[in-house]
Amino acid sequence: MSEFETGLPSVRLIQNYIKDKQQIELKLVTNDLLVGKIFWQDNNCICVLDDSEKQILVSRQAIAYIKTSD
Amino acid sequence: MSEFETGLPSVRLIQNYIKDKQQIELKLVTNDLLVGKIFWQDNNCICVLDDSEKQILVSRQAIAYIKTSD
Amino acid sequence: MSEFETGLPSVRLIQNYIKDKQQIELKLVTNDLLVGKIFWQDNNCICVLDDSEKQILVSRQAIAYIKTSD
Amino acid sequence: MSEFETGLPSVRLIQNYIKDKQQIELKLVTNDLLVGKIFWQDNNCICVLDDSEKQILVSRQAIAYIKTSD
Amino acid sequence: MSEFETGLPSVRLIQNYIKDKQQIELKLVTNDLLVGKIFWQDNNCICVLDDSEKQILVSRQAIAYIKTSD
Amino acid sequence: MSEFETGLPSVRLIQNYIKDKQQIELKLVTNDLLVGKIFWQDNNCICVLDDSEKQILVSRQAIAYIKTSD
Repeated sequence: MSEFETGLPSVRLIQNYIKDKQQIELKLVTNDLLVGKIFWQDNNCICVLDDSEKQILVSRQAIAYIKTSD
Repeated sequence: MSEFETGLPSVRLIQNYIKDKQQIELKLVTNDLLVGKIFWQDNNCICVLDDSEKQILVSRQAIAYIKTSD
Repeated sequence: MSEFETGLPSVRLIQNYIKDKQQIELKLVTNDLLVGKIFWQDNNCICVLDDSEKQILVSRQAIAYIKTSD
Repeated sequence: MSEFETGLPSVRLIQNYIKDKQQIELKLVTNDLLVGKIFWQDNNCICVLDDSEKQILVSRQAIAYIKTSD
Repeated sequence: MSEFETGLPSVRLIQNYIKDKQQIELKLVTNDLLVGKIFWQDNNCICVLDDSEKQILVSRQAIAYIKTSD
Repeated sequence: MSEFETGLPSVRLIQNYIKDKQQIELKLVTNDLLVGKIFWQDNNCICVLDDSEKQILVSRQAIAYIKTSD
């Protein structure tokens, strides 16, 4: 997840997760599993809101995978 | 797996896996092993469908290797 | 967190953390958890001040995520 | 192993391993050790044939080292 | 720590550590902790002198963080 | 160790290790420690000769540090 072009399927899929306030699981290369909603994305980061609405600024290069959690 | 050019053998092999709905194993740098079918690929990600047809958006930079599982 | 453009939401969020002297937690790909305030950021690094005001020069490519700690 | 220029010594060494059907060991950053022959290489990947002739598509960025196994 | 521009705060901070023969701790993504002085830096590497004045050529991409050790 | 310019101090230091047949230790991000002599370097790899003169093709991006072993 190193380049950000709004036409890319992966960027659009994440954009849909944002719009739908989709609950997601985000696995990191540290093996951390973050759970929450995606708030926004930019070129470098994905901002996740956890269940207490706290922002977690996640580096794209640290992401292993994203999937819906329901 | 950092650049996406449709003429590359690795991109075409994955394209064949998509077309054939090939069951694959995808090993990540986290040591996770994902099993399923490849749904699509773009510059940044490979989208895997697991056995329950859930989409898993996998970062290319997190992939160690891909092989067929049968 | 590989490119530094001052207009990016992620760069501006960090800039706000700097301005507000926000207490943050910074998780590294080594699984280290650094706690402190962000002093400055540039293209390559984020400089964290720990509780004893010591500077820790953190490589952006080693950052997994940043969140506020209160 | 991030750029692919056919004149590079490392690319040519791998090309020789391909031509000679050389048995090799490939150590990954996951600490997996793959054993087999190199089938082809491109900009992003090295395709390894294991002992049962199954193709393993290995990301270059996940490779730690390659050596002959005999 | 992937680009080297002499005007960057992070590059200048390291340049100050070099000039001051500052004792530093350098944490690597391998979780190794190197202790010593920074001898020089270039685009790809930071050269550390350990306590026996041996040179250790450290890849920038392997650095998690640098801090002073006193 | 991502760019290869022959004028860089790090490239020249490695070039000296090659010329002097210097015994070195090479620590990888996998935590492997390779011991031997550097045979050649190119843009992507460093080729190490172990004590039995076997070539080990090491990816630059997998290198944590290099130091002399005597």
